[in-house]
Amino acid sequence: MSPPIDFYFDFTSPYGYLASELIGPLAARHGREVTWRPYLLGAAFKVNGGRPPTEVPLKGEYVARDFPRSARFHGIAYRHPSVFPVPAVAATRAYYWVAGQDAGKAIALAKAIYHAYFTEDVNIAEAENVVKIAAGAGHDAGAVRAALADQAVKDRTKAEVDAAVARGAFGSPYVVVDGEPFWGVDRFDQLERWLHKPF
Amino acid sequence: MSPPIDFYFDFTSPYGYLASELIGPLAARHGREVTWRPYLLGAAFKVNGGRPPTEVPLKGEYVARDFPRSARFHGIAYRHPSVFPVPAVAATRAYYWVAGQDAGKAIALAKAIYHAYFTEDVNIAEAENVVKIAAGAGHDAGAVRAALADQAVKDRTKAEVDAAVARGAFGSPYVVVDGEPFWGVDRFDQLERWLHKPF
Repeated sequence: MSPPIDFYFDFTSPYGYLASELIGPLAARHGREVTWRPYLLGAAFKVNGGRPPTEVPLKGEYVARDFPRSARFHGIAYRHPSVFPVPAVAATRAYYWVAGQDAGKAIALAKAIYHAYFTEDVNIAEAENVVKIAAGAGHDAGAVRAALADQAVKDRTKAEVDAAVARGAFGSPYVVVDGEPFWGVDRFDQLERWLHKPF
Repeated sequence: MSPPIDFYFDFTSPYGYLASELIGPLAARHGREVTWRPYLLGAAFKVNGGRPPTEVPLKGEYVARDFPRSARFHGIAYRHPSVFPVPAVAATRAYYWVAGQDAGKAIALAKAIYHAYFTEDVNIAEAENVVKIAAGAGHDAGAVRAALADQAVKDRTKAEVDAAVARGAFGSPYVVVDGEPFWGVDRFDQLERWLHKPF
């Protein structure tokens, strides 16, 4: 059995959302599991001076067209959030809290968070919205609320974010297969061929 | 007859080089001509604070792998230049001098410049190397040398660069089809579908 694919992403990233819809079936076609590793792009930006593409002159106007067009290209529902981008700290903490208990349930929560933000315009920066999303995914609201304030969950999240950047992640999605990195949902064609056979 | 595709690129851009190998056949499959419009990424960087990806922490290590891998993916010869990136002013001026006379010959020169830089490690920042490349493409060396010093050629080049940035170009390649922009050789899948039918 080949080792799992590492899938790094930020919950506020449109291309990460598109990748989240594609990565599972793609990996399955090649007999691979996927380890979902949400992190915070802001941590990478602190290292390399990056900033959200929507805030970059010229690029900002481009990505505003490209986000929904890329979603249409892949046949994925997309509604650009009215508050964008947002800090995804609470969502990321909720993910790692669940991941500490059950990897499959954590992936289900990640999908629910992405759907809420990118199809229902739920502001995932607000902790109480994350609680609601998690409750909708079958978690106890009070337990989620407590987890978001739990220092151990905060520490785990920070360690995961730091590890992602140490691994080289600087964008979303950022996928690593057997040591080979692929940045962007627009590298999924190369990722797919690499999984078939490294080139 | 549909209007031509506008193909913006920088002569020092690896992805622009890959695009230059693909854009002609791609357009031809949809009955389109291509207007080749070299410009200078530095002019866009002045507007938006961008810098060459090789100089960005984390991203720099990534693109060093991705340049040759993307070339292999597309089956295109690639040798990373020993001096990179370089200012492409002389190459761009030579292009527009020829373009003022013959569009087809200008495209042939652009391909020769890209091949020299990305397969033969010729430093295209040096004007005399551009003269040699142009001479190899059938142009009179003395006439090229004179053109590179001609104020009218400098002015035409500056006007083209300014027009590219005014059009929204901020990367390489940057392709515009009937008003729709596509950034990156990794948008050529969307570009191809768009040429078939806008979505």
